[in-house]
Amino acid sequence: MSSSRSADVHRSEPALSPAATRVLRQLVLHGDATRTGLAHDTGLTAGAITRAVRPLLEAGLLDETGERVPAEGALGRPATTVTLRALAHQVVGVKLTADRLFGVVADLRCGVLDESSVPVDDPRPEAVVERVAELVAGLRAGRPEVGGVGLATAGDVDAGHVAYSPFLGWRDVPLRDQVAARTGLPTTVENDVRALLTGERWYGVGRGLSSLALVTVGAGVGSALLVEGHVVRGHSGVAGEVGHVLVDPDGPPCHCGNRGCVEAIAGSRAILDRAAAAGLPATTLDEVARLARAGQPEAERVLAEAGRAVGTGIATVANLLGPEHVLITGEAVGTDYDVMEPHVREAFERHAFGSAARTALELRPLRFVDWARGAAACAVEDFVTRYGRS
Amino acid sequence: MSSSRSADVHRSEPALSPAATRVLRQLVLHGDATRTGLAHDTGLTAGAITRAVRPLLEAGLLDETGERVPAEGALGRPATTVTLRALAHQVVGVKLTADRLFGVVADLRCGVLDESSVPVDDPRPEAVVERVAELVAGLRAGRPEVGGVGLATAGDVDAGHVAYSPFLGWRDVPLRDQVAARTGLPTTVENDVRALLTGERWYGVGRGLSSLALVTVGAGVGSALLVEGHVVRGHSGVAGEVGHVLVDPDGPPCHCGNRGCVEAIAGSRAILDRAAAAGLPATTLDEVARLARAGQPEAERVLAEAGRAVGTGIATVANLLGPEHVLITGEAVGTDYDVMEPHVREAFERHAFGSAARTALELRPLRFVDWARGAAACAVEDFVTRYGRS
Ligand SMILES: [Zn+2]
Ligand SMILES: [Zn+2]
Repeated sequence: MSSSRSADVHRSEPALSPAATRVLRQLVLHGDATRTGLAHDTGLTAGAITRAVRPLLEAGLLDETGERVPAEGALGRPATTVTLRALAHQVVGVKLTADRLFGVVADLRCGVLDESSVPVDDPRPEAVVERVAELVAGLRAGRPEVGGVGLATAGDVDAGHVAYSPFLGWRDVPLRDQVAARTGLPTTVENDVRALLTGERWYGVGRGLSSLALVTVGAGVGSALLVEGHVVRGHSGVAGEVGHVLVDPDGPPCHCGNRGCVEAIAGSRAILDRAAAAGLPATTLDEVARLARAGQPEAERVLAEAGRAVGTGIATVANLLGPEHVLITGEAVGTDYDVMEPHVREAFERHAFGSAARTALELRPLRFVDWARGAAACAVEDFVTRYGRS
Repeated sequence: MSSSRSADVHRSEPALSPAATRVLRQLVLHGDATRTGLAHDTGLTAGAITRAVRPLLEAGLLDETGERVPAEGALGRPATTVTLRALAHQVVGVKLTADRLFGVVADLRCGVLDESSVPVDDPRPEAVVERVAELVAGLRAGRPEVGGVGLATAGDVDAGHVAYSPFLGWRDVPLRDQVAARTGLPTTVENDVRALLTGERWYGVGRGLSSLALVTVGAGVGSALLVEGHVVRGHSGVAGEVGHVLVDPDGPPCHCGNRGCVEAIAGSRAILDRAAAAGLPATTLDEVARLARAGQPEAERVLAEAGRAVGTGIATVANLLGPEHVLITGEAVGTDYDVMEPHVREAFERHAFGSAARTALELRPLRFVDWARGAAACAVEDFVTRYGRS
């Protein structure tokens, strides 16, 4: 619950009421509205809207346009529209990978204004923090509106600490406080898949949905879950481990100690290992996919099994949670997924229970800038959440 | 989301503010408190507490005891305690089964004041509604405080309708409105496993937890899930189908059309079928368990496989959701579960990922009165929720 809290570095925002937070959140998420519409959508009284809007106007976060439109439920009565000044507050979002940092500047609607990246040559936390600060400084230059940083990284993230990140070799790194101290900006840190979910939920396919499953396939197979309007974090820090759903008890061994997990069949390494074991001349997913497209039966089998494993794992998610939409993404989608997709769908439909089989499955390639945008979405969420606190 | 809304039959309660609902909910869930404590726990101001408490006192739902205790944060300053008059509002909870209705009267703390049951001889909705009305009338007699009914039934329940109940053979029965019309009481209908979860969440092991998985084993294997403080309902109505988690693709066929689901190995019918196939002289779970306890290897194997299937299914729930606590219950627990339990735990620990393996697993037998109490908990929740609406 507390993993995306910001460090207490900047307390210069005015102390606002929870009502102001609700109004700001409503405008960020759902666009401009009349005061009457705002009252309706937030459940606040007209008076409370007036009191909530005033400090937001004063802070320059909102405009009230002169345009007069008829108010809902009051035919003909003129009403002004409250508009979010999306550019008034900007954030930097950064995705950390083992060899590169990808950054974007985004506005309050998570529109990307600029992007950049820097290499990581030294994976030690102090060195990475320096690189993050450098990337942030570059993206901030000439943009006084930048007022927050969001960081996204694979691994266990809790309360601003990177509890464990296998690919960086980090354990219990207080990344949030280190970056906040180094940049002087409120900073939030989130697991990268949950950050991506936050972006999709606020600004993407998840808008207006109370449930959404985001499944990422690549080196690992992971997921982040929105359930009844809440991002699932898991009590022990474990959640969304769709990669370790059992597919075949006699299947290949998995690094978790079991056999036949989704990841042991459909992770990039697993696909390449299985291709090699079948004697295929392929060292990349692209090559395996090319062989399969050319009709090579072993390549077809390896990718079909991988697709079925992913589909089975997703069906399990659907059977337990009944999400409204499932988004399957990752770097691999777009290389080998034209081959895998029919098998993903077939296994999903076979294993989904009853009406869960009708869940919408969407496959979409993923670029590094999308990860960074997810990190930016977390920074916007953090800004909006902090804004109302005294 | 809307499945436990009550019918609009009684609108005689005074229109209260959302603050009153919050105060009432706080007292129902967490017990008596000082006004200062209430303000702290609900996040309301002292003035809001005063305005919220007044109509609740007037309605006879609260008492203010003369006892003066020191207020928090104000050493020595006297403060009165606000007490819930739990008996002031009572509800009837009813669990429907194919051959019998089980009912309880419960107070606002879900304390059971009385219980009763009536047979079901005719499963048609009209006949069952008559039987429910009869049971409610008997439990209400001499209790003018009874002001609501909660019904719990297996199957898909949505917005007061029983969308589908295989064991009763019902499709799309507007049970809530029919019982409300027949009894003249606000009525709420919930899926039975979710009703049980509501009872545990409000008054049982789930108090204070934001995540809890309740797994029921018996004829079927099901679950209800509390995630980030919300009961999961699933977009399509499907959720919690742990019975159809895949355990073994080469396992026995399941009624869902797949092979090797948890339920196809660990459901009561599956256990008895597998025992019969192994030539065991057993027609009840009790008999299979007795044979296993006596060292009969085939009986041991059948129950071990069933236990491992349940443990694997629960590990999948833990890997995806990271619940704080898992409660395994059902009529079967207490007959054969001493034999199955070590296998449940062993498979859970083997398949749970990382720190999820440390999740607390509790096994507990289940009586029909517990189901009825879950239905009563839904009626209390409905009362508290409705109370603040205008
Ligand atoms: Zn695994
Ligand atoms: Zn099944």
